[in-house]
Amino acid sequence: MTERPRLRDAGITIGTMPTGEDNAITDVPDVRVGHVTLNEGDGAAAIRTGVSVVLPHSGNLFREKVPASVFVLNGFGKCFGQEQIDELGVIESPIAFTSTMNVGIVADGLIEHAIGQNPDCGVTTSTVNPVVNECSDAYLNTQQGRHVRQHHVLEAIDSAKTGPVAEGNVGAGTGMTLFGFKGGIGTASRRTPEKAGGYTVGAMILGNCGVREQLRIDGAPIGRDLADRQPDPAAEDTGSIIILIGTDAPMFDRALNRLARRAAMGLARTGSIAAHGSGDYILAFSNAHRIQHDDDRVTYPAEHVVETGDVINWLFQATIEATEEAIINALFAAETMTGRDGNTRYALPVDRALASMERYRPT
Amino acid sequence: MTERPRLRDAGITIGTMPTGEDNAITDVPDVRVGHVTLNEGDGAAAIRTGVSVVLPHSGNLFREKVPASVFVLNGFGKCFGQEQIDELGVIESPIAFTSTMNVGIVADGLIEHAIGQNPDCGVTTSTVNPVVNECSDAYLNTQQGRHVRQHHVLEAIDSAKTGPVAEGNVGAGTGMTLFGFKGGIGTASRRTPEKAGGYTVGAMILGNCGVREQLRIDGAPIGRDLADRQPDPAAEDTGSIIILIGTDAPMFDRALNRLARRAAMGLARTGSIAAHGSGDYILAFSNAHRIQHDDDRVTYPAEHVVETGDVINWLFQATIEATEEAIINALFAAETMTGRDGNTRYALPVDRALASMERYRPT
Amino acid sequence: MTERPRLRDAGITIGTMPTGEDNAITDVPDVRVGHVTLNEGDGAAAIRTGVSVVLPHSGNLFREKVPASVFVLNGFGKCFGQEQIDELGVIESPIAFTSTMNVGIVADGLIEHAIGQNPDCGVTTSTVNPVVNECSDAYLNTQQGRHVRQHHVLEAIDSAKTGPVAEGNVGAGTGMTLFGFKGGIGTASRRTPEKAGGYTVGAMILGNCGVREQLRIDGAPIGRDLADRQPDPAAEDTGSIIILIGTDAPMFDRALNRLARRAAMGLARTGSIAAHGSGDYILAFSNAHRIQHDDDRVTYPAEHVVETGDVINWLFQATIEATEEAIINALFAAETMTGRDGNTRYALPVDRALASMERYRPT
Amino acid sequence: MTERPRLRDAGITIGTMPTGEDNAITDVPDVRVGHVTLNEGDGAAAIRTGVSVVLPHSGNLFREKVPASVFVLNGFGKCFGQEQIDELGVIESPIAFTSTMNVGIVADGLIEHAIGQNPDCGVTTSTVNPVVNECSDAYLNTQQGRHVRQHHVLEAIDSAKTGPVAEGNVGAGTGMTLFGFKGGIGTASRRTPEKAGGYTVGAMILGNCGVREQLRIDGAPIGRDLADRQPDPAAEDTGSIIILIGTDAPMFDRALNRLARRAAMGLARTGSIAAHGSGDYILAFSNAHRIQHDDDRVTYPAEHVVETGDVINWLFQATIEATEEAIINALFAAETMTGRDGNTRYALPVDRALASMERYRPT
Repeated sequence: MTERPRLRDAGITIGTMPTGEDNAITDVPDVRVGHVTLNEGDGAAAIRTGVSVVLPHSGNLFREKVPASVFVLNGFGKCFGQEQIDELGVIESPIAFTSTMNVGIVADGLIEHAIGQNPDCGVTTSTVNPVVNECSDAYLNTQQGRHVRQHHVLEAIDSAKTGPVAEGNVGAGTGMTLFGFKGGIGTASRRTPEKAGGYTVGAMILGNCGVREQLRIDGAPIGRDLADRQPDPAAEDTGSIIILIGTDAPMFDRALNRLARRAAMGLARTGSIAAHGSGDYILAFSNAHRIQHDDDRVTYPAEHVVETGDVINWLFQATIEATEEAIINALFAAETMTGRDGNTRYALPVDRALASMERYRPT
Repeated sequence: MTERPRLRDAGITIGTMPTGEDNAITDVPDVRVGHVTLNEGDGAAAIRTGVSVVLPHSGNLFREKVPASVFVLNGFGKCFGQEQIDELGVIESPIAFTSTMNVGIVADGLIEHAIGQNPDCGVTTSTVNPVVNECSDAYLNTQQGRHVRQHHVLEAIDSAKTGPVAEGNVGAGTGMTLFGFKGGIGTASRRTPEKAGGYTVGAMILGNCGVREQLRIDGAPIGRDLADRQPDPAAEDTGSIIILIGTDAPMFDRALNRLARRAAMGLARTGSIAAHGSGDYILAFSNAHRIQHDDDRVTYPAEHVVETGDVINWLFQATIEATEEAIINALFAAETMTGRDGNTRYALPVDRALASMERYRPT
Repeated sequence: MTERPRLRDAGITIGTMPTGEDNAITDVPDVRVGHVTLNEGDGAAAIRTGVSVVLPHSGNLFREKVPASVFVLNGFGKCFGQEQIDELGVIESPIAFTSTMNVGIVADGLIEHAIGQNPDCGVTTSTVNPVVNECSDAYLNTQQGRHVRQHHVLEAIDSAKTGPVAEGNVGAGTGMTLFGFKGGIGTASRRTPEKAGGYTVGAMILGNCGVREQLRIDGAPIGRDLADRQPDPAAEDTGSIIILIGTDAPMFDRALNRLARRAAMGLARTGSIAAHGSGDYILAFSNAHRIQHDDDRVTYPAEHVVETGDVINWLFQATIEATEEAIINALFAAETMTGRDGNTRYALPVDRALASMERYRPT
Repeated sequence: MTERPRLRDAGITIGTMPTGEDNAITDVPDVRVGHVTLNEGDGAAAIRTGVSVVLPHSGNLFREKVPASVFVLNGFGKCFGQEQIDELGVIESPIAFTSTMNVGIVADGLIEHAIGQNPDCGVTTSTVNPVVNECSDAYLNTQQGRHVRQHHVLEAIDSAKTGPVAEGNVGAGTGMTLFGFKGGIGTASRRTPEKAGGYTVGAMILGNCGVREQLRIDGAPIGRDLADRQPDPAAEDTGSIIILIGTDAPMFDRALNRLARRAAMGLARTGSIAAHGSGDYILAFSNAHRIQHDDDRVTYPAEHVVETGDVINWLFQATIEATEEAIINALFAAETMTGRDGNTRYALPVDRALASMERYRPT
């Protein structure tokens, strides 16, 4: 297998803002990502799935929650934990992505994790609100087997780390399909100007949506040039995408929801129409604040990003750019995979994609 | 006309929490209320309407906005300004109540007011978001005449003051109907314990909803005892209620929305079923913060009420109690009125209501 | 143990509308309810939990979905499946109630059930959206053990039946606390007048919320009379309530959401303040329609309840009344239970409650 | 002045679906559009504004309402009527677009219109819910003057007609700015395949948003090539966009909301980031149904588009394509205008834009 470049390494830049050091959600200080990948067996026994987790900070998330919000662009999808985020404006567990039919078990794994860290959880203090989202890897994975077990969730959390993030066929991304090609995990980041706070916005996506002929990279409709090698057109267009936005800008739920809606605009630019069968869920969090689980004060102080000037617009643009690039990064990273019943998803042919991009370069 | 007592002066107490000094929304420091009442003519020329305004603080609201949120229990109603409150979490104008068909003109009056205070508004800075809600006074008022004009709005704002609030047939309340009796403006307040911040929660309502036989006071179904003197049963049950909650507790939009939802619970306790034709809108604001219109900082600091302990529950209970009492206060204050085409709404017969209450006192 | 009467058998009537035959959600034709109760061990090994399921019709729910909607009064709670209900306006699985930490596993059980009925589910057709809600039985149950397993879910579904519904300490209700007394499952129903369709509205609740002194029955504040026998006041006020409304009136999601909001009004009348720690989730469904999973038509026809006249108001009132009565039915049915670490929840002393009610009867 | 071509006449096609006959929202049968344009005076007396109305059908809209829904992408904007659309799922008035500070008066004009058609409106039947949206024409128009009066609204309604729709500097579009160029009204339409119903989806936009350098046409970042002739860069990026989607596909509010969300994706493709100061409101209606104001039936029948197959996806794609093209059509149509205080907005230089597009054509 040849090493596949990231989009930016191939000379293509999305937007105008600078990236963080690793062009990853982990560029947001103290954010960690972990994957457990399950890739075993073949034919009717093919396991092509996994779980990915993002930890908004390295502390005890149940005890120190982070502000968060959710936007649902198209709600044909299963998830766990969004109602409590809506009510309280915080996330208090690692954020997990997995295969659709595994959501229940993965939520149970996050509960196990919370109990491990907090023996009083659900006994003498409140229960934890696990956060799980999913896409369906039905084409490559024997999804009914719900192969991700509680211990895989714990392993993913234990393995979570800062620094570069593995993309493509890893963790939850193992069996995914994106614009008719092999999909999976992708990530990117942007930094706002120093005068606008010098904040980092990171995106991590689990990409499983889109129709090949509608794929665009930086606006160029290259999907039209790549219409072959599609083994099963009928299987197109039923997938989903999960988008996670993290930032160190000091924001609360309402303002974070504004970021979440901008992520949908980044998705739109890649050519998705958010088809009927797509669960397009977007979560956004800020780790600039830690909301205490046990707090006997009457009030607590916190900083808020000013929303009347440029600061918020830079954060919007950062979100759109990082989302768009994270999606394409997933495509560039994911490799051809054969799974359930011999079904094969072909990787984006990077050389041909780049050649197609070249055709749309300004003369 | 005999002086009509307030509910509490008649010896009836709703809930267990103490009131503020005037048992009014103006107990929240710096909140002011103004009414302009239009009560002229008779028959086909009867004008029975008006406008009421609440000013969350005494400064320039466009320049110094207050956090706010809206909850719609039943959205059969017209209003102005709620979408921007949802997006930005602030109110930046006086809050006006009026007759349904007057919402457009009253919004225009608030715009005029903002321009007067802010000559740059809509020229070199952004436009103002006026906040208006309404109930229909069609039974007593010749509503199609839209009798409230721009200048009435300005007069209501100019006349706004702290201290006791006129209730019943004043301002927007002039022509309203509540549980089949004469309705209108009502207000009440509660104070949370000192250990829970010692905050004030005030409610002001424009009451125009409900079916007489379903009326309850402090749980007692006294409406069943007061089934006579209803001139036009067919006209029952098409009205609305607007509830405004104000507090000095330092809260932002999400937490304020939690208060707004509790106000609906206070309404439920009076016997309303939020009938189909009812526009049941609830706004909640905090004047503990002033969000700057012109702010060249990157962030600003603010206190937040802690939501994990008793503080928030006291605020919830205060909201429910104040809302329930404000509704009944409107009924107690409003006097019999004859209006359009000789239509008459009879006042709640206070003596009979109290006698009925007496029947339900514990033996 | 003496047989505990239902509220209505004790001579107390909530509201004015007639009930269905069994005064239960199963009065809605073709609705079935099943419970699996786990009540074993003591002390540190006490299991006091279970699972309850409601089947909107007796067919294959994945293949024939029912219109539905969700309203969240206070979202401090975990659940599964609500986002897809919001998007598509349908429920496609049995509706399960359970203990908080069991939501993941119970969702997994519903997935297993769907796969059993639909071998193509998640392979060649879309995945199922399981619907699960919860309350925390932490006071009596060793909740961290997540004792409800996949097979219990399947057993509850298999045992589901029409006719009278067991209430109190059954299924998910086994370990619950309601207004400081033993709580659990309750149900009730109402029928609208024939001229308004002659529809049935049923409510089933999982009651685990409220502060004892705030309890009201039919408006009477009897909680104040029952302030003793409360073993652990500090443990009050952290619970939740799940309310399920079912009807055979032909309604779609938007109109059903209107019913869901009225259920919150029924809850308010019992004295709940929807405290901070309460997950107050309300689901409403209609089984008058079956939305096809496999449908190659361009359009399908359906009846809609007219919303401009009395029909919808009767449905609103039915919802409020049935909800209020279902909550009190849970209190009347639930028996004293000792569970985890010897913790005891006492049953509502029915005789004293009735004596208290008697004090508030009109003289 | 040279005639300015529409985008499609200039040889550029957005997407793959066919347009309706006039490539306008009026391709939806029975939809009519009317404009009143106010373009008078200069300098400090410059009036550059107007009002545009869309009539979903040619009957009495108050008596025969149409299903509708609203999606707010960014709620920094004023509007009228959205709450009642949310609650009841219908529009019952012409849909008006105007200048921000004119919303109140224009709403009042729609009330006048409803009273004219329905003398019982607000007297013996309910009040009308006028629907108004706005963008700020502050740069060219002396907006504080609120130049659009009640009679202009009535004139716009009277003049409404089917057939080709005037674009650019007409009606509400008179004083608008789009991507730093002169903006205004734009429209486009798409038809779904016959096997998917052969429905028409039309978009009409009031375009006043965007930063010039971010403008894209069919993905090509041509804004970067057109960075000159921008008189006041500081004035960029504070505007809004209103998008109206109409269709004859038989859909109700929930499904229409799905279309509204897709319109936001069409907007995203033009380069907008939905900046902080942007009021990005999207309304969608279907005129396949007429919901009766006076209906004494218990239920009514209606067709619904099936959402499980291709039908809904074609409608999604049609919405995205029509929205994107309508925005660019506004840019192509709008001509250079000088207004308030000599401020000038330059038209998109069509020849240069087309030359820039040529640079991005595939080689």
